[in-house]
Amino acid sequence: MRDQLWRGVFPIAPTPFHPDGRVDFASLDRLIDHYAAIGADGCTILGILGEAPKLEASEALDIVRRCVGRWKAPLIVGVSAPGFAAMRALAREAVAAGAAAVMIAPPSSLRTDDQIVSYYADAVEAIGADVPFVIQDYPLTLSVVMTPGVIRRIVQANPSCAMLKHEDWPGLEKISALRGFERDGTMRRVAILTGNGGLFLDFEMERGADGANTGYAFPEMLIDVVRLSREGRRDEAHDLFDAHLPLLRYEQQPGVGLAVRKYVLMRRGILAHDAQRKPGAGLTAAARTEVDYLLARLALRDERAGRLSGA
Amino acid sequence: MRDQLWRGVFPIAPTPFHPDGRVDFASLDRLIDHYAAIGADGCTILGILGEAPKLEASEALDIVRRCVGRWKAPLIVGVSAPGFAAMRALAREAVAAGAAAVMIAPPSSLRTDDQIVSYYADAVEAIGADVPFVIQDYPLTLSVVMTPGVIRRIVQANPSCAMLKHEDWPGLEKISALRGFERDGTMRRVAILTGNGGLFLDFEMERGADGANTGYAFPEMLIDVVRLSREGRRDEAHDLFDAHLPLLRYEQQPGVGLAVRKYVLMRRGILAHDAQRKPGAGLTAAARTEVDYLLARLALRDERAGRLSGA
Amino acid sequence: MRDQLWRGVFPIAPTPFHPDGRVDFASLDRLIDHYAAIGADGCTILGILGEAPKLEASEALDIVRRCVGRWKAPLIVGVSAPGFAAMRALAREAVAAGAAAVMIAPPSSLRTDDQIVSYYADAVEAIGADVPFVIQDYPLTLSVVMTPGVIRRIVQANPSCAMLKHEDWPGLEKISALRGFERDGTMRRVAILTGNGGLFLDFEMERGADGANTGYAFPEMLIDVVRLSREGRRDEAHDLFDAHLPLLRYEQQPGVGLAVRKYVLMRRGILAHDAQRKPGAGLTAAARTEVDYLLARLALRDERAGRLSGA
Amino acid sequence: MRDQLWRGVFPIAPTPFHPDGRVDFASLDRLIDHYAAIGADGCTILGILGEAPKLEASEALDIVRRCVGRWKAPLIVGVSAPGFAAMRALAREAVAAGAAAVMIAPPSSLRTDDQIVSYYADAVEAIGADVPFVIQDYPLTLSVVMTPGVIRRIVQANPSCAMLKHEDWPGLEKISALRGFERDGTMRRVAILTGNGGLFLDFEMERGADGANTGYAFPEMLIDVVRLSREGRRDEAHDLFDAHLPLLRYEQQPGVGLAVRKYVLMRRGILAHDAQRKPGAGLTAAARTEVDYLLARLALRDERAGRLSGA
Repeated sequence: MRDQLWRGVFPIAPTPFHPDGRVDFASLDRLIDHYAAIGADGCTILGILGEAPKLEASEALDIVRRCVGRWKAPLIVGVSAPGFAAMRALAREAVAAGAAAVMIAPPSSLRTDDQIVSYYADAVEAIGADVPFVIQDYPLTLSVVMTPGVIRRIVQANPSCAMLKHEDWPGLEKISALRGFERDGTMRRVAILTGNGGLFLDFEMERGADGANTGYAFPEMLIDVVRLSREGRRDEAHDLFDAHLPLLRYEQQPGVGLAVRKYVLMRRGILAHDAQRKPGAGLTAAARTEVDYLLARLALRDERAGRLSGA
Repeated sequence: MRDQLWRGVFPIAPTPFHPDGRVDFASLDRLIDHYAAIGADGCTILGILGEAPKLEASEALDIVRRCVGRWKAPLIVGVSAPGFAAMRALAREAVAAGAAAVMIAPPSSLRTDDQIVSYYADAVEAIGADVPFVIQDYPLTLSVVMTPGVIRRIVQANPSCAMLKHEDWPGLEKISALRGFERDGTMRRVAILTGNGGLFLDFEMERGADGANTGYAFPEMLIDVVRLSREGRRDEAHDLFDAHLPLLRYEQQPGVGLAVRKYVLMRRGILAHDAQRKPGAGLTAAARTEVDYLLARLALRDERAGRLSGA
Repeated sequence: MRDQLWRGVFPIAPTPFHPDGRVDFASLDRLIDHYAAIGADGCTILGILGEAPKLEASEALDIVRRCVGRWKAPLIVGVSAPGFAAMRALAREAVAAGAAAVMIAPPSSLRTDDQIVSYYADAVEAIGADVPFVIQDYPLTLSVVMTPGVIRRIVQANPSCAMLKHEDWPGLEKISALRGFERDGTMRRVAILTGNGGLFLDFEMERGADGANTGYAFPEMLIDVVRLSREGRRDEAHDLFDAHLPLLRYEQQPGVGLAVRKYVLMRRGILAHDAQRKPGAGLTAAARTEVDYLLARLALRDERAGRLSGA
Repeated sequence: MRDQLWRGVFPIAPTPFHPDGRVDFASLDRLIDHYAAIGADGCTILGILGEAPKLEASEALDIVRRCVGRWKAPLIVGVSAPGFAAMRALAREAVAAGAAAVMIAPPSSLRTDDQIVSYYADAVEAIGADVPFVIQDYPLTLSVVMTPGVIRRIVQANPSCAMLKHEDWPGLEKISALRGFERDGTMRRVAILTGNGGLFLDFEMERGADGANTGYAFPEMLIDVVRLSREGRRDEAHDLFDAHLPLLRYEQQPGVGLAVRKYVLMRRGILAHDAQRKPGAGLTAAARTEVDYLLARLALRDERAGRLSGA
């Protein structure tokens, strides 16, 4: 289906809003332009982080079109939905507009291996076997646990499966298991980009990941760590990663994480506001002070990050 | 907001489909006309039973308009959605089209009492405080447990709360507790119509329910049981109820229930097909034979039901 | 391991308590003697219904010994525990005391097929491969979903697997699938006795179940339905079953069910008290009146049940 | 009940095992002696980390007695159990043996605020109101979400509530909310020691926590961070914390964390083995190499930690 496998860093984009809840397209433009400027290899929009379920169908499509218009690298569009009609509609429209692939998360009602495999078969039938898709494997939030064997079944049964967004936790052994399947010939090669805010990116690269697909507010760091890791500069990769870890850890708190990211991106001048659509938790004054402190400390360790955030 | 409280039987309508997945509007017309002919007091569409998440937004609205055009009694429209934008859109359009109220189920991620209360506050803000709404309390499927005290908080905080669709299991004590709140003056009177396929309707009426809001394939029985119960004809109410209980129990199986209902409604000549949109479990040949047997046995105990189903 | 497969009715025994929380051994004697008198084919103690987690280890063992002393048919002992050390201790002691098998429920943390299969492998290693065991498949309460394929893997991997306590809901197709595995030679024959209070026993027998393993307060009915069904007297089996269904349905309410059963068994003169150990929900006065009414109605339809309950 | 509130660092002790599964009391002695040597303010045994559910009752009690015999500071004993009989037995015996308090986690079946509050009321009735207890608030693993208001209700209703083991995630605002309750006079002062491996200890101290109650394999660091934070040496506290964060983050992986901790404690010469009782995941060779690398890097940043681990 595709000539080459994706690799590198695909930031997960938050959806910028005005304080009154309207989509902030000017900020979205800046965000996309920023990804291009730093050399991101691709980009994912309308994921969980992107507050996708809070959007009307027409808004989602407007966002897709806006991004496609400014972004030349592969664009992945989250199309997870409670039913296949809505999933199909957005997937077909997104691809028609120029998206490279769609991302599908399993509904939390799935329990057995067979249910998970069947769900992806039905989803592919709904969106069409010509639409490349990404498996989102995120048990902490989705409550669906996919073994490496289940992922293999999905990959093997569906030629249009283009990538695994790996977001299990813990997940290092899963990467090793999947790469082992490829080596022993029981699974075709598939791109594995990792999530979880990058919390284990240092070792995920060493286990065989192809890059990151996550929303940390300094994607520059993700790009550098991936590059350093590929170049075999292990200590340098870890040094840079460790410098960001205190903030990254703070950002990775469930629920609060999006607010932290939007706040940092606002401080960086990329987003005009850190507003979320309801229901969404904002940061307390205490939390903002904590993030400011983390940014100030980060500036001491990563001079570029300090410059980027004005800290 | 409304001059009188709802009572009686509001059938929950399945959404008829053609075998190819298109909405079967002719069958929908017959279904609605049937509810009118038997004297149903109201009707709910686009609930969980109505396969609402499988519909595109435009289809949902078409169904609302079709029903409003044929149905003079109150129409309740399920508007549960993963986000408030979609919920608001359907709710406003449904009411503009003539619906009497909307039904809102809590998302399964809610855990604490405060989260549940806040969710309904946010939902009311989204759809507008002028739109009457129904609380759907269905822990078995939704995994959200609302105590009587939480329901009271929602009712008291939101004048637009028009009804409780009571579908806890077990739930008899909950009805008693809520009626107790009304008697001791801590909660305003609110209509309580019960679900669960009617599995406890006999006793729910005796505990103070105002009627049924469920999808059993012989709503005629529900109507008669509610009437007999109101008239104090206890033994007759139970006799009729018990005659239907073997089928009703069979119909109440999670997941399979909708297939049974559609099959019975097809056998009754109301639906042209018993098709569901994907993903949906159909009946095996063995299950159809079992339903046929139950219908034949029902015909021996309730002659009218036998006539209605051709058994 | 055993010369013949179990079949028939194995009542699940509640654990009788005095109002002060002590085990009521005199009532336990009466209960066991009653099972013997009516011709029960076996008996299960210390299941979920038996309030097993509320017992100290020494109490559990005392109960096992008391039952073994009075009961000649196979005794199954629930040994589910949060860890294998406690499971092993009770299992070994129970079998040493004369129990025929133990019953093991999967912990609710299990999600994937492999996790479930591994859990039973570890459990068998812990209790010893010489101890016959029963799989408890009860997703509604345990939140673990076992496909027919997973059950087959457990049965085939463990010669000491003696029986499936089938308590899925819906579950008729599961029985058919497992019997199909036996017919196509991919699974050895294993006894399937069904639970869920008997709510689907009428059809479960027709699908191939070997009997019932559940706690309905009139096990006499279960025994007769199983016998009638085996004899091919279908209508008679359903007639008797349907007569009990209103009470059986009432008894099958989650949480409240045990209180209903103990109350009926007390009314029947078998238990001295209907007390549960804390935490346990008793029946309200309204609920007791409802059960009394159901017993009175049952007496009109099943004269023997009326005599047995004094209704 | 107690003259003063606990504060400082109470390590959570793993339970050392021999490779054949027996409790390794010699390693337990070394572990306890180590806690004493570094000046730990207390210690918790038989928690989730301590593999408590895998122990027989007699083993648990042996461990309590062994620890009490060597340890003069307050000892907290985890007594969470599926039923109150077992909880009561261990709690009474532990306190009789000299334990200072017991820790109680809510069972995962609890959903509503009232259920949680009632559970602790029942637990206190079971263990006796004279036994100080610790609330374990750990939603990620236990699936029970306690609002600050629910914790307040438990604290106010139970004078024997001695401490909150705070392990919500995210949890910083919860600490602030509880300290706010104390300031506004609606909740008495209660000790708050934090868990989650210490992942947010830096900020938890600043929000008002009294210390840490967690199992990070270098409790020396926790002790120093708590001390530095109390002394207002903020940057130093964060510097030390950040040096450990890469390892701490690795150790905090669900499921795998215990294996990492035991491995590090073995490398430190405190435990003779890193064995777990079944079922328990060990570390792969790849994971051990990763931990070794993290230890080597830690040694560069925290010279003492390097010396302690031989890295």
